[in-house]
Parts: sequence; C-alpha cells; structure tokens
Amino acid sequence: MLRLFKFTQIGLVAITLLSTTCAVSQAGEISQSNRDIQVEQLVDGLGIPWGMTFIGPERLLFSEKSGRLRLLRLDTLELTDIKGAPTVVAEGQGGMLDVAVSPNYSRDGWIYFTYSKPADGEATTTLARARLDGTQLKSWQDLLITDSATSTRVHYGSRIAFDHQGHVFFGIGDRGDRQQSQNTENHIGTIIRLNLDGSVPADNPFNNDPGTRNEIWSYGHRNPQGLVFDTRTNRLWSIEHGPRGGDEINLVQKGKNYGWPVISYGKEYWGPVAIGEGTHKAGMEQPRKVYTPSIAPGSLLIYQNDDFPGWNGNLFSGALKLRHLNRVSLSDTGMPTGEERLLEELNLRIRALAQGPKGWIYLSTDDGRIMRLRPRKP
Amino acid sequence: MLRLFKFTQIGLVAITLLSTTCAVSQAGEISQSNRDIQVEQLVDGLGIPWGMTFIGPERLLFSEKSGRLRLLRLDTLELTDIKGAPTVVAEGQGGMLDVAVSPNYSRDGWIYFTYSKPADGEATTTLARARLDGTQLKSWQDLLITDSATSTRVHYGSRIAFDHQGHVFFGIGDRGDRQQSQNTENHIGTIIRLNLDGSVPADNPFNNDPGTRNEIWSYGHRNPQGLVFDTRTNRLWSIEHGPRGGDEINLVQKGKNYGWPVISYGKEYWGPVAIGEGTHKAGMEQPRKVYTPSIAPGSLLIYQNDDFPGWNGNLFSGALKLRHLNRVSLSDTGMPTGEERLLEELNLRIRALAQGPKGWIYLSTDDGRIMRLRPRKP
Repeated sequence: MLRLFKFTQIGLVAITLLSTTCAVSQAGEISQSNRDIQVEQLVDGLGIPWGMTFIGPERLLFSEKSGRLRLLRLDTLELTDIKGAPTVVAEGQGGMLDVAVSPNYSRDGWIYFTYSKPADGEATTTLARARLDGTQLKSWQDLLITDSATSTRVHYGSRIAFDHQGHVFFGIGDRGDRQQSQNTENHIGTIIRLNLDGSVPADNPFNNDPGTRNEIWSYGHRNPQGLVFDTRTNRLWSIEHGPRGGDEINLVQKGKNYGWPVISYGKEYWGPVAIGEGTHKAGMEQPRKVYTPSIAPGSLLIYQNDDFPGWNGNLFSGALKLRHLNRVSLSDTGMPTGEERLLEELNLRIRALAQGPKGWIYLSTDDGRIMRLRPRKP
Repeated sequence: MLRLFKFTQIGLVAITLLSTTCAVSQAGEISQSNRDIQVEQLVDGLGIPWGMTFIGPERLLFSEKSGRLRLLRLDTLELTDIKGAPTVVAEGQGGMLDVAVSPNYSRDGWIYFTYSKPADGEATTTLARARLDGTQLKSWQDLLITDSATSTRVHYGSRIAFDHQGHVFFGIGDRGDRQQSQNTENHIGTIIRLNLDGSVPADNPFNNDPGTRNEIWSYGHRNPQGLVFDTRTNRLWSIEHGPRGGDEINLVQKGKNYGWPVISYGKEYWGPVAIGEGTHKAGMEQPRKVYTPSIAPGSLLIYQNDDFPGWNGNLFSGALKLRHLNRVSLSDTGMPTGEERLLEELNLRIRALAQGPKGWIYLSTDDGRIMRLRPRKP
C-alpha cells in the first residue's frame, strides 16, 4: 500500500522557512503539477524504525528499537524478519539502535550494529557486526562493549559512521551521568574510533595516555543522535541533543573536548538556569550550529547527489520534537550558511535517514512509517 | 579442485628481491611450516580473466577478454555465466575489459565495465554500467563511448577507479596513434573523469576550453593498464606500459600532461632509438617510478589492510612480461621507497588484482587461473 504525501516547496535557492501545503492522496496517484518535491509513504505500522541502511538497490535493512531487524524490499514493499540478533535492553531510549553497511560491503559483507547490551541489570552501548546470509545473521561479533553501563535507560548515543579510510566511529551519550562526559577513563559521553575489525587504530589521540580509554576520538558529548562522515571533505559531523535548548551540530576532531556539561547553550529542564560555567571555555570546542529551542535531532545525513538541486553536501537531520526534516547548507570551510525546515506539515517525529538509489532520501518516523522524498521531475 | 602453491618469503621488512621456492601440493594440503605467505589456486581453465571485482564476500565477478562475464563463488568454487553483456571487439588487446563495483554498491547496485565497442569496423574504449539481477545484467548504460576509435586493436587502457567523492575514472591508451596522446580534442591517451552517472563534473580541468574534450582529467598517457584511487591519501595512481623499457607509475593530477610521446624513458622497439625529445620537458610530468626493462604491468591495486605486515598502503601490480607480482612501498608524500618482486617462481603472466575479504589478494593469470595470496598465520 503506497500512500503519497505531496506539498509545494517555494524558494529552493533562498534558504528560508518554507510555506508549504500537504495533501494525502491514494496509492499511485502522483500528481503531475509543478511541485518540486514529493513524499511517498512506503510502509506503516512498524515498531520504531531507529536505523536504516541499504544492502542493495531495492533492499533496505532497518532496526526496530524493540529489538527486531527487518528488511523492506522497495520494489514489492515486502517485509522480512531477519533472525540472529542478540537480546537487547529495549527500555527507555535503548534497544536495537543503528545499522550501517561496511564501506567495503561489496567485498566483506559486514553490517555494523549498535545496541543496548544487558550488563548485570545495567545496559551499555555496544558496537557489533555480522553478515547476512539469506534472512539469518551470521558471525555476530561484539566489537566493543563500551565501558558506559549505567542503570538509566537514556542517552545511548549510537549512530555509526565510516571514514572510508578503514575506521568506524560511533557516539555514546552521557548515560544520565553528565559529569562522566568529561572523564576519559570511561566511554561515557564520547565518540569512539576503531578499525573496522574493532581494534584500536595506532593513531588514536589517547593511545599514550595511561588510564584513558584509547578507543576515544573526542569527548564532552551529551548525546550524539546523528553522526556522519563526509568523504568529500574528510569531516566528521555530529548532531546532539541539548538539555533544554542548545542542540548542537559539532565538527568532530581528534582528541577535542566538546564541553558537556561544563559549557552548553542549553538550560536546565527545571527552570531558566544555565548549565555549568556558561557557553565558552578555553580548551573546549564551540558547536558549528546551535538550535534553541531544541529540535531534538534523531539522525544526521550528508546528502551526496545532484538530484535535489542545491542540496549536494548539505546536512540533513530528522527532528523528533519540532517534527520536521532539517536541512543545513555549509560553506567550503564547513560553516553553516543556512537552514531550512522541510516536511513540517507532516507533523511526524522523523528518526532515521538514509540516502537511497537515485539520490532519493528515505526517512523513518517514530509512529512506524518509512517514507521517501523524491524530486518531482517536470 | 583447490591446488596450492607454496613458497617461502624471506625478509618482509627489508624490501629486496626475494629468494623464494615454490612447490605445488594437492588440494587441502596446507603445510604448517613457518612460511609467511601461501598461494592458492582457486580455478583454472578460464579465458583470459581481465577484470575482477567482489560483489559479495564470497562472490567474485570477473570478465574474460573474449566477452564473457562470470561469477566465481569462493565457498564452493562454482562458476556461473552472467548474461546480458553487449557485443565486444574481442581481437588483439580488446574485448570485455575491466569490471568494478560502485563505491555506493550497497545502495545503488551499479557495476561498471569497460570494453572495446564496435564502431564502424573500428573499436573504441567504452565505459558502461549495469545492475546484476540473479545471473542477468539489467539496465545496461553506455556512459561514455569515447572518441578514441581506431582500426588498431591495441592500447585500449580501460582500468576503472573511483574516488569515493562521486567520480569515476578510467584510462584510454594511445590506440596505436601516439601523436593523439597530446591532442585533447579526442580521448586518446587520456585519463577520463566523470560523475558516477556519466555526466561531466563541473570542476573538470578542460570545461572552459573550447575544442577540448571536457571529460579529460589528464593526458599524454601511453597505455594505462592499472588505475587506482587511494581513498586514504586522495591520490590517483596509474601504471602504464612504456614502449621498450620505460614503464611508468604516475601520480595522476588534474589537467596535467604526462608527456607521451614527447618524453619517455623507453626506446623504440626497432633499436636503441630514444623517443621524442628525451626524458624531461617543461610542462610535462615526470613519473614517480620507471621500470626498465619493462615489466608490462597488467593492473594496479592499493592494498588496504594489515593482514600482510608492512603492506598497508603499498601499490601492487601484476607483471605480464616479467611475470611476477610487483610491490612498491610509498612514503607519506607518495614517493616510492622500495620495490619487491613476488611470485616470480610461478612464472605466470599476472593480470587482474583484487583485494578480497579478510584482506587477501586475489589475482588472475593470462593462462586462465584465479589464485589468491594469503598470510600463513603461525
């Protein structure tokens, strides 16, 4: 059952808030109007689809936070359960989280996963990989069971990124214990960098720092819910939830401290109280962009195609709280030059994003849909 | 039927010519000696396997120069014919040539091909792509039928490389008409750079030069038979046949002239006669490495793994005439620091190379074998 959402987009060149309209039509009824963008719903009624990755041009693998892995065939819209995933702590923000194919997928077949792994009544963000044989996962390997177990069920981070130079990155949130984000003796509040087999790269920043976890690439993060490596510029980007206001886009660099909870642009939830020491401090990095009020980002994507004019190289994130698809254009030096809020009319919590064949953008929503955004060719 | 070639390697650290021994044993008889490297023959009796690429961890797609595409399953050694390839001019050095999966293969499913396309009794190097559906190629697209048709059947170039930034490169030889390598009004003797869909990138070097083919990235090439992009260093490397002596490894840069036939380190075939104006000329690039006598390279690979100690980031090429596997180590600035000649004892014309799962090196030979090189773990 294919349902269509359509809306008008005005002013693709000028990056401004859009005035859009949205209409729902029946399957197959694609209007031939002059509208620029079309949203199609492929499937609904899913659990919360948290991570999505293409394992073939017509095959979208996704996780449901409850612990399930499923495959969606785009040509038939058939759904298939994938077996062989381990037990996850599917409580609060935890569960089966991100999925991402290896940059060498065509020759190595590895699929990477993050999940909340049970740990003596606590739960900890864990990076794993496995291969898919038919509908069965084989050779499951936990690559890093991080030292970030707490009894809370929040702030697992968990998005996965690859630099195409042999490294995998993933983020871990502050696990509800914010002071630990400044403590590099554990993995809480960090972004991790490993070789693809899970070993620690020889050039990681804390390799010669005894007592420090040498898997750490950067620290002082609150809860990175989007992480993406731009292979064209060699930049690693994260997007993170602030406390109340102060969501951040960060350009993640080796060994740097992103300041949580010492500096933040957000306020405490319980009132107009600043957090920590303010917004700036020597030795701590400034975000490249701040969102106040918070949009609550659920993902991050670098769009790499010319199919949507002007979007090549832009950052996209799904917004959970302010319910839209966020687009940020960047200068050559990686400074944000504009922001656009797309799909507000859908009023859906947008979670995962993936770029698919033909350059279309696939998105999932917390109410259990997978949709796609495609250009409307005249 | 698995046959094993084994030999001893001495001095992996020092880059010197090896003293090796080679023995052939029966299937499955893997000696547990201290030898460092093992060569396994997977299959023989093939046509000339010209190009090879992994489309899955156990699935090696390869071309036979005669025009056939075949799939080798590594687990069962089963061979399957792939249907749907176009007619090729399978004469001389032409035929079905390189095959290479898209860097976005997991989501776009494209496989890229080069072949000698019939052109009014002549033949021309052509870049194409298609998708594989079972054993059938679908959606075949000729992306660039190059302006390099001649009546000769030599010097097609044809190796394919990707920069993982949205571009595909391939080389074209001088097509037996050497003066054309200096003429950028056609594609002869050039390396081409296109977007993955075959369109011309906006930042190609000759876009604003009327009368020049704007698909050209570099020119003055004789016959690039290896081409590889190192995603870690963002360097594009070619390896080219010299005339008699003077094979070259070139660091290929935007808009540069690599000098053929004005400068060369080789001699004319018919005697000790230098070619052109010598070895150097202002405005023309020097090779990074020269082989005299010629080894006749058939391929180029950047090895990206630690499975063979010390080989990570090295350039490998199959040698057709001097029958070995050539290894060149590089400094951080891309200067060759040493050369090693491996597998000389096999006495086989080594054609295509591919890095496979687990970091093993797969190679084909002109007498119709596919073999692999693997470390012998103690």
